[in-house]
Amino acid sequence: MFLKINRSFLIEELTKCNRIIDQKTPTPSLIGILIDVEVDKVSFMSTNNSLSIKTSTSVGEHGLFIKETGTSLIRGKYFLEILRRMDDEFISINQTETNIMTLSGENSEFTLNILDYKDYPMLAFREKGDQIELSAFELKKSLNQTIISVNEYNQKIVLGGLNFSAIDNQFFVTGTDGFRVSRKRIFIDEEKTSKFEANIPYKSVMEIIKVLPDKGKVKIVLLENHVSFLFNNTVLQTTILEGQFPNVNSVFPSTFASTIYVENKKFLKLISRADIPSDENVSIVVNLKLEGQIIYIKSNIQQIGSFEEEFKDFELKGLDEQDIFFNSKFLIESLKSFETKNVEVSFIDAKKPIVITSSEDNSLSQIILPMFSN
Amino acid sequence: MFLKINRSFLIEELTKCNRIIDQKTPTPSLIGILIDVEVDKVSFMSTNNSLSIKTSTSVGEHGLFIKETGTSLIRGKYFLEILRRMDDEFISINQTETNIMTLSGENSEFTLNILDYKDYPMLAFREKGDQIELSAFELKKSLNQTIISVNEYNQKIVLGGLNFSAIDNQFFVTGTDGFRVSRKRIFIDEEKTSKFEANIPYKSVMEIIKVLPDKGKVKIVLLENHVSFLFNNTVLQTTILEGQFPNVNSVFPSTFASTIYVENKKFLKLISRADIPSDENVSIVVNLKLEGQIIYIKSNIQQIGSFEEEFKDFELKGLDEQDIFFNSKFLIESLKSFETKNVEVSFIDAKKPIVITSSEDNSLSQIILPMFSN
Repeated sequence: MFLKINRSFLIEELTKCNRIIDQKTPTPSLIGILIDVEVDKVSFMSTNNSLSIKTSTSVGEHGLFIKETGTSLIRGKYFLEILRRMDDEFISINQTETNIMTLSGENSEFTLNILDYKDYPMLAFREKGDQIELSAFELKKSLNQTIISVNEYNQKIVLGGLNFSAIDNQFFVTGTDGFRVSRKRIFIDEEKTSKFEANIPYKSVMEIIKVLPDKGKVKIVLLENHVSFLFNNTVLQTTILEGQFPNVNSVFPSTFASTIYVENKKFLKLISRADIPSDENVSIVVNLKLEGQIIYIKSNIQQIGSFEEEFKDFELKGLDEQDIFFNSKFLIESLKSFETKNVEVSFIDAKKPIVITSSEDNSLSQIILPMFSN
Repeated sequence: MFLKINRSFLIEELTKCNRIIDQKTPTPSLIGILIDVEVDKVSFMSTNNSLSIKTSTSVGEHGLFIKETGTSLIRGKYFLEILRRMDDEFISINQTETNIMTLSGENSEFTLNILDYKDYPMLAFREKGDQIELSAFELKKSLNQTIISVNEYNQKIVLGGLNFSAIDNQFFVTGTDGFRVSRKRIFIDEEKTSKFEANIPYKSVMEIIKVLPDKGKVKIVLLENHVSFLFNNTVLQTTILEGQFPNVNSVFPSTFASTIYVENKKFLKLISRADIPSDENVSIVVNLKLEGQIIYIKSNIQQIGSFEEEFKDFELKGLDEQDIFFNSKFLIESLKSFETKNVEVSFIDAKKPIVITSSEDNSLSQIILPMFSN
């Protein structure tokens, strides 16, 4: 293997690959990044078992010049640290012996021991299947807004990730842990007639968020046991969770007894105060009592203390009497997921779901089940 | 106790106190911040055994209003988190029962369990003694530039901190671990005739750096077993290390065989490349070979690889032949301590100290002992 390439570009591509690697993997070869040099292009690949990435560049792009083909497995972490300390605009990579690679600039040369690529699993990247296309920025935002309701370690395997589904020209991302639901809708250009559905594991979602660009389009491709995300010169391919995702549409109430209209930041700060700080990472039960023009917020936590506040800065539609208990963390995370100035919080009664929406952005809905009073 | 005070100011003062607290202290009361309310002022105090802090505010300043005197011991961490979540400009603190305090704004009230102040050690803050005055910014910079040579766990107790000394109108801060020396000189207004010397423990230095302001003056006061730092409304008081600090002046060479003049950033990047990244936090031995117009830098680390570079971007005074081995980390930290564009690195031979200075700022000197070749 012998190639020359722009150093900054190489850092970018290897950073993407290195990001998804589990640095504590018990399989030593999975620490590595595979470099595959063909006659006309170079590809960098890595995997953490559930998620794999491949990024390719053709000769002529980013100063890529290929003198000799080959395959090598490098320690991405060290490689990146070295590349960042170099000054050169272009660098040469030359595998001189089975387990030795040189990395050289104009005046400097690193001679590095590398891993044995024969220990690396065969990664098959597929890019053809039923697909939808949407804005990478929108997708990233959707994942961030819905992942809050997912418990990675949910006993029900299928709930340990986000559900993707498309119907007609709508694409939905849904997460639930059984106590709350986050649902995001994005309009797409295509009209989906066939069933488009897949469940993406929590860990993959977290990595996809980090690797997705802020600009451009991304294609989501449904494969038999995988889902691929295609953007720029990159393929991200994740395993999927087996099982039937619950039909959350049935839990979304459509009529409410009371709706409060409130400035998101103010309400979030109020609920954050009720979330009394403590050493243990306990959830705090907050009591929201609506009485006429006033909302009374109360909470307490053993050994630390209690909190009480009267809140009047809201508008009300419907019944002016509610007495509801809920998990502070759930409401805080829901409110934070909205980027809008105002939100609407709707109640039915003490036992029915609380729904958070915003008329400024009706693509997102958050549902929280109340707790029974204690 | 009953007082009212500006919330932002209270956050600032409690943050200073909370910063030095050892959150893992085995003495539960030391987690606390002591609030002492007298008729005309309030003081906040905390300690971590080696360093104590006291900050005071008088009635009328920062909206301070006192209704009832008293002493309370609060859990600073929670208190601060709560204060940050509040919206009010002024807040009231009211100790209603022995172990209960309320913290209230206009519409909200926290009722908090507090600690028993009777368990707290008596802290005596002294502010009178032999003293020198200098710029807080200069002192902070000096501590940062010299602490790099200190090993907190040095077997020789007195080396586990920085040495302060003043002679005539010069104030020196010196650190050494036996393998390197960092020395900083600051000119002061006074003319010191009596002996002014003290050794400040590493941990205290690190905390002092964080608490010192960027503006204004600081007074350093020598007490019998302590040193105090006075600035604004604050006293920081540290224990000192017993023992005779070595006379480092004797190790500073005054004549050199070769001096290289080099751009600091470029040389730092070169040595950083030679500091080959690895998992273990090992020091890397770097070989610097000067031959005529070229410096050859070489290093290697078992199992990872090796590095080689030719460097020509320097000016030389003196002998054009040197072959020296040194610890990469020592030189990197020394170079980073200079804020100047250029530095001078001076050599005598393979066994004599390497000295790093800069003609742009002659207040700072760094010395590194070379290693014997392997």
